[in-house]
Amino acid sequence: MLAHTLQTHSILVESPQPQSAVLPYPQYPVFQEEDRSMVVVMRTEATEAHIEGVLERLHEHALKGHLVRGEERTIIGVVGAMIPPTLREEMEHFPGVAHTIRITQPYKLAAREFRPHDTVVDVRGIPVGGGACVVIAGPCTVESEAQIVQTAHAVREAGATMLRGGAFKPRTSPYAFRGLGEEGLRLLALARSETGLPVVTEVMTPTDVDLVARYADVLQIGARNMQNYQLLEEVGRTGVPVLLKRGMSATIDEWLLSAEYIIAKGNPNVILCERGIRTFETATRNTMDINAIAVVKKRSHLPIIADPSHGTGQWYLVPSVALAAIAAGADGLIIEAHPDPDRAVSDGGQSLTLENFAALMPKIAAVAAAVERSIAVPLELEVA
Amino acid sequence: MLAHTLQTHSILVESPQPQSAVLPYPQYPVFQEEDRSMVVVMRTEATEAHIEGVLERLHEHALKGHLVRGEERTIIGVVGAMIPPTLREEMEHFPGVAHTIRITQPYKLAAREFRPHDTVVDVRGIPVGGGACVVIAGPCTVESEAQIVQTAHAVREAGATMLRGGAFKPRTSPYAFRGLGEEGLRLLALARSETGLPVVTEVMTPTDVDLVARYADVLQIGARNMQNYQLLEEVGRTGVPVLLKRGMSATIDEWLLSAEYIIAKGNPNVILCERGIRTFETATRNTMDINAIAVVKKRSHLPIIADPSHGTGQWYLVPSVALAAIAAGADGLIIEAHPDPDRAVSDGGQSLTLENFAALMPKIAAVAAAVERSIAVPLELEVA
Amino acid sequence: MLAHTLQTHSILVESPQPQSAVLPYPQYPVFQEEDRSMVVVMRTEATEAHIEGVLERLHEHALKGHLVRGEERTIIGVVGAMIPPTLREEMEHFPGVAHTIRITQPYKLAAREFRPHDTVVDVRGIPVGGGACVVIAGPCTVESEAQIVQTAHAVREAGATMLRGGAFKPRTSPYAFRGLGEEGLRLLALARSETGLPVVTEVMTPTDVDLVARYADVLQIGARNMQNYQLLEEVGRTGVPVLLKRGMSATIDEWLLSAEYIIAKGNPNVILCERGIRTFETATRNTMDINAIAVVKKRSHLPIIADPSHGTGQWYLVPSVALAAIAAGADGLIIEAHPDPDRAVSDGGQSLTLENFAALMPKIAAVAAAVERSIAVPLELEVA
Amino acid sequence: MLAHTLQTHSILVESPQPQSAVLPYPQYPVFQEEDRSMVVVMRTEATEAHIEGVLERLHEHALKGHLVRGEERTIIGVVGAMIPPTLREEMEHFPGVAHTIRITQPYKLAAREFRPHDTVVDVRGIPVGGGACVVIAGPCTVESEAQIVQTAHAVREAGATMLRGGAFKPRTSPYAFRGLGEEGLRLLALARSETGLPVVTEVMTPTDVDLVARYADVLQIGARNMQNYQLLEEVGRTGVPVLLKRGMSATIDEWLLSAEYIIAKGNPNVILCERGIRTFETATRNTMDINAIAVVKKRSHLPIIADPSHGTGQWYLVPSVALAAIAAGADGLIIEAHPDPDRAVSDGGQSLTLENFAALMPKIAAVAAAVERSIAVPLELEVA
Repeated sequence: MLAHTLQTHSILVESPQPQSAVLPYPQYPVFQEEDRSMVVVMRTEATEAHIEGVLERLHEHALKGHLVRGEERTIIGVVGAMIPPTLREEMEHFPGVAHTIRITQPYKLAAREFRPHDTVVDVRGIPVGGGACVVIAGPCTVESEAQIVQTAHAVREAGATMLRGGAFKPRTSPYAFRGLGEEGLRLLALARSETGLPVVTEVMTPTDVDLVARYADVLQIGARNMQNYQLLEEVGRTGVPVLLKRGMSATIDEWLLSAEYIIAKGNPNVILCERGIRTFETATRNTMDINAIAVVKKRSHLPIIADPSHGTGQWYLVPSVALAAIAAGADGLIIEAHPDPDRAVSDGGQSLTLENFAALMPKIAAVAAAVERSIAVPLELEVA
Repeated sequence: MLAHTLQTHSILVESPQPQSAVLPYPQYPVFQEEDRSMVVVMRTEATEAHIEGVLERLHEHALKGHLVRGEERTIIGVVGAMIPPTLREEMEHFPGVAHTIRITQPYKLAAREFRPHDTVVDVRGIPVGGGACVVIAGPCTVESEAQIVQTAHAVREAGATMLRGGAFKPRTSPYAFRGLGEEGLRLLALARSETGLPVVTEVMTPTDVDLVARYADVLQIGARNMQNYQLLEEVGRTGVPVLLKRGMSATIDEWLLSAEYIIAKGNPNVILCERGIRTFETATRNTMDINAIAVVKKRSHLPIIADPSHGTGQWYLVPSVALAAIAAGADGLIIEAHPDPDRAVSDGGQSLTLENFAALMPKIAAVAAAVERSIAVPLELEVA
Repeated sequence: MLAHTLQTHSILVESPQPQSAVLPYPQYPVFQEEDRSMVVVMRTEATEAHIEGVLERLHEHALKGHLVRGEERTIIGVVGAMIPPTLREEMEHFPGVAHTIRITQPYKLAAREFRPHDTVVDVRGIPVGGGACVVIAGPCTVESEAQIVQTAHAVREAGATMLRGGAFKPRTSPYAFRGLGEEGLRLLALARSETGLPVVTEVMTPTDVDLVARYADVLQIGARNMQNYQLLEEVGRTGVPVLLKRGMSATIDEWLLSAEYIIAKGNPNVILCERGIRTFETATRNTMDINAIAVVKKRSHLPIIADPSHGTGQWYLVPSVALAAIAAGADGLIIEAHPDPDRAVSDGGQSLTLENFAALMPKIAAVAAAVERSIAVPLELEVA
Repeated sequence: MLAHTLQTHSILVESPQPQSAVLPYPQYPVFQEEDRSMVVVMRTEATEAHIEGVLERLHEHALKGHLVRGEERTIIGVVGAMIPPTLREEMEHFPGVAHTIRITQPYKLAAREFRPHDTVVDVRGIPVGGGACVVIAGPCTVESEAQIVQTAHAVREAGATMLRGGAFKPRTSPYAFRGLGEEGLRLLALARSETGLPVVTEVMTPTDVDLVARYADVLQIGARNMQNYQLLEEVGRTGVPVLLKRGMSATIDEWLLSAEYIIAKGNPNVILCERGIRTFETATRNTMDINAIAVVKKRSHLPIIADPSHGTGQWYLVPSVALAAIAAGADGLIIEAHPDPDRAVSDGGQSLTLENFAALMPKIAAVAAAVERSIAVPLELEVA
């Protein structure tokens, strides 16, 4: 970079206006593409021996190959270290190799280029990311057995596919209620056993991952923790499905890089969740980034759902924005619903009453049908 | 305000850390609610004489009353000057007056409180803001007779309700093409005479308003001009329907205040247009604020449409976001379409091909039907 | 662009998830560098005939050359049209030409590359942009003869270099006071004749430019009008110094492009003014972008001053931020000061009392001295 | 809240435009002030028995009182639970109590109202937050013994007060270098033993706190972890000074609430660090929020330093912004400096060369002197 070359040869000029020197300013100097990843696409007729040959050669360069076996052909994602400039060329002359693709995004395993087909995450038999949209509903915080069980029954009856509820709550103020902890997890499991609804709940710190994973069907990573890398790696080690919320000022690429942290530890079951970004607008708590749904579909193979409750911050805006997200192509919704929002210990202002939630479900189904999707049905088997 | 009281009695302390003084900081000091507006709601049995009485009394206080005659009763909006603290009470004892409402928003004529029912703007017989959604389509810039006429025929055939096209173009760089000017307006009128599609086109400066109004059916105010107050007042004087785009960093309340400028000059025919706001996200040109559609419906009676072309900046994101806007309750869409986007003189990257536009229309209709809306049909009469 | 090539060959797929197709997403597709500008650097020994030769050749290509004669050599800025790909090469073989520079910024005349030395704008003999910092002070709005004359005397005594005051005020609400108009201009001129302080005041619409220019020494373009292109061109035609405020969500490059509009019309006397940008932070009215001062010094040769009153929105933050701006290299400050901020008709909350302004001036001088600058002194001659 | 009252009585209307109902929209409904904190101010003549009496009464209400013994009088901060509405009144009639103050900010222990005098944090004998500014310098990442020791000697010679360097590095991409870990900590301690400079280094996860605290003099909490509450509480338990960076989209109040988490665990040694916020501007990596320095001084008693390296992202902008921060009242700076920025493993683009850092120090001292501050001197004793 020219600027630096100049810097190493001279210290900053001491005159009153040292800025006057004519230095061409660097274009987009902030982001440095890490040019060390590629995909090796095998020929349709490639044999196991060919594939082995490629993997061995990669191994010699201390590179790791991720096999993706498709119906027609196998591709190999190469990640994790500097790729020698000559390796790509070399690979293209390997037996069984069709060609190679340079991956320009900083994320690889999360990239659409790496995996052309949509990932479908299995949550207790419910597919997330296929043709049917999931609706996850429940209170912000688990407050009592009566509250969570009543809510679970009501949202299931209305057609919800999974149950949400916080047992460990991140709170901006140290003096706010932080959840029932393990007791809350126990109540969620109880509600699941009564309704068959899989449970989605947040885990906030690496040391809690095993505990929460014993109760939860989906581990939620909250917006504040999107770049808590130890936590990402810890849920990556579990293999349990992860709901990864977007950080409130994270770019889409940063978000996909956080997904990459999880997948790179061996857990491909990542469900992204757009929950609104922070902007200058104060009429709503956050600005739901509806564009992000289509951008993610383009750049990644991961399923993405939307959270209109946090995305707007106000219950009376939730229905419009929920329908918008489905129309935009979201694979589902996560919605706060509470038997008595006025008395909720947290986020009451953005929670729907159970009646309003029930009134919303047929509208969601109608819009899903209009875009040739459906609503996922909760599994009957579990209830018994 | 305490801070100021302190200020007038003492100058800033000269010590190294003058900030140490314990001054309670003012809460939200920036925004000062202008407490000088109200609505007088007349009884259903109020007579013309009662109404006259109220207006006269307002006149004595140098206030202006806007009459809104509903089916059941008449209400009177009072605007434009300081309301004596006692006047509201006095009014409530006036013959024929039911009660008064203090309007807390800074806008009044644009407020839902002032006019509970949705405003429907009539554009050459096409209602904007009723049950049917309008679709306005066309190129960013009018380039030639062939281009605009071909586009007009194609979008009409696909089901569009109006034609868009820029004759005067705001450009960030002084060296970019700024449109064909009056020749562009002439071509738009020609396309209208061939297809019957009403014409929407931008006016950029007060002195051009009369010229543009001679050709256009809807005067568009661009995002950069949302707070060009002379321009707002000038289009306010015409009575011609106005498409008011949201400024790229305008809050919803500032936007409604700009609408207020137009209505206050006597032109109630304002159509709002959400076109994306500026955020930190660089994956898209702007961030379509889908929340804003529902917020506007709550706070205002004005129709609102969405511009997914500017709202995303990329053609392949337009369909998803267009459908989302309809699902969220938008009264229509404005979409850039061009016979050959690769060769468009401006904004080609966000323009749909005519084929893609045609493929999108049935999807829009399906989502509209799912939320119990329809697509407005262009008027047949005009074509002959 | 690959995306478009694909688009022209196929319409969007109609399947439920058309986004699944593996399209490489375009990198930074939004901004298209306009590759049509260059600088021709003449040799030191180049003759007038050499220069004429270059200009003639440019003329044949319908290009315009701006001559900049330096002490050592002449350079020629080429702007305003598409440069034939071969022309730059051709130019480099022309007699008298040293080399050419491709200008990658979209702005040219405002670019540091075009004019390596700092521009100094002359305001009635006061240099803006040289070693001495100017301090422009006065009320937000001109309210009365007593108010503006008292303020002018007080700020001059405290060491201010120029007087500010609004006669035409942009107001977010149509019901707010919009200034005294020409009467306000007359009062500003009166205050100038009594104190010798040059007058800075805002012009809001193209048709007012001549009127305001009859009274003002510096024409201020407000933040809302930064992209009011007709207004920019109109002040560009006058030759009167212009204070160009940054739009509240304008990037630095967009701001320099607005300066380019003014310079391209023949008025090089542009003073930039950083006045804070809109962010998510609500503790202050705007976020003063202190970085912008150094960035502008790097990218442009234009002088830049800072407005800590709008940049913070609160009087008690003004001193800290004023000092910061001077330390960062600003060429001056514009500060709101009022005899009685509590009773100011606008922006009282961010105005300093005259006492606080006087207390601030020696601190500004101390920081200026620390960065080897000084404070510009008002001209004595005028007062007599 | 009216909106909710309405919600509990009726479900959302099913008609096509349910938003038409005239509901007054709630003003600023998002933020609910937690009204459960107060300060009890004792009379100057209050005895220990009076104080005990107040603490006992608080204890009966399950409230905790924090004693702050000033020279003239004692005040008691009451935090951590809902305060019965009648308690404040009751307290005002207690023997020895002068009056009570309701604290309206959500943070209490971090609030200026709670502690009127500036907190001074002691780092190995160096006071942070007093009259002298600290300068913390060093590389982004510890790379080798040679690199960190050379840097430590160079920055100490230039006048730096402490050494920075990352051993554990948060990286957006899972494939980027994440630091030397404990080996890096060991090298930092080595550099400290050779130069006497206290060491500032980041800790990223609760389980590493004890390890890092064994080597570091100041525990740095990075911007991504500002709301990693377990981590905040863990460093709160140590008592070791904490450098708390502002989250890249955190409001000032959220930042002070994070400080509150640390103090509430018993560690009052919090140094805030403004490192730029995320905005729409792409010319710089972040936007240094210079306003925040003065706002923090107003709202809190905690010391605040600035990080111009991350605040701008470009080495050539660092000097201007460093000087600005000192002029604005910052208690110090943290600056990236590296022997060879071009070859740095991270953030080379924003690191100063050691020569440029040395050239900057006298300028910092000059600006500090201009605002009646000085530069803290490193302790001589340690070096022997």
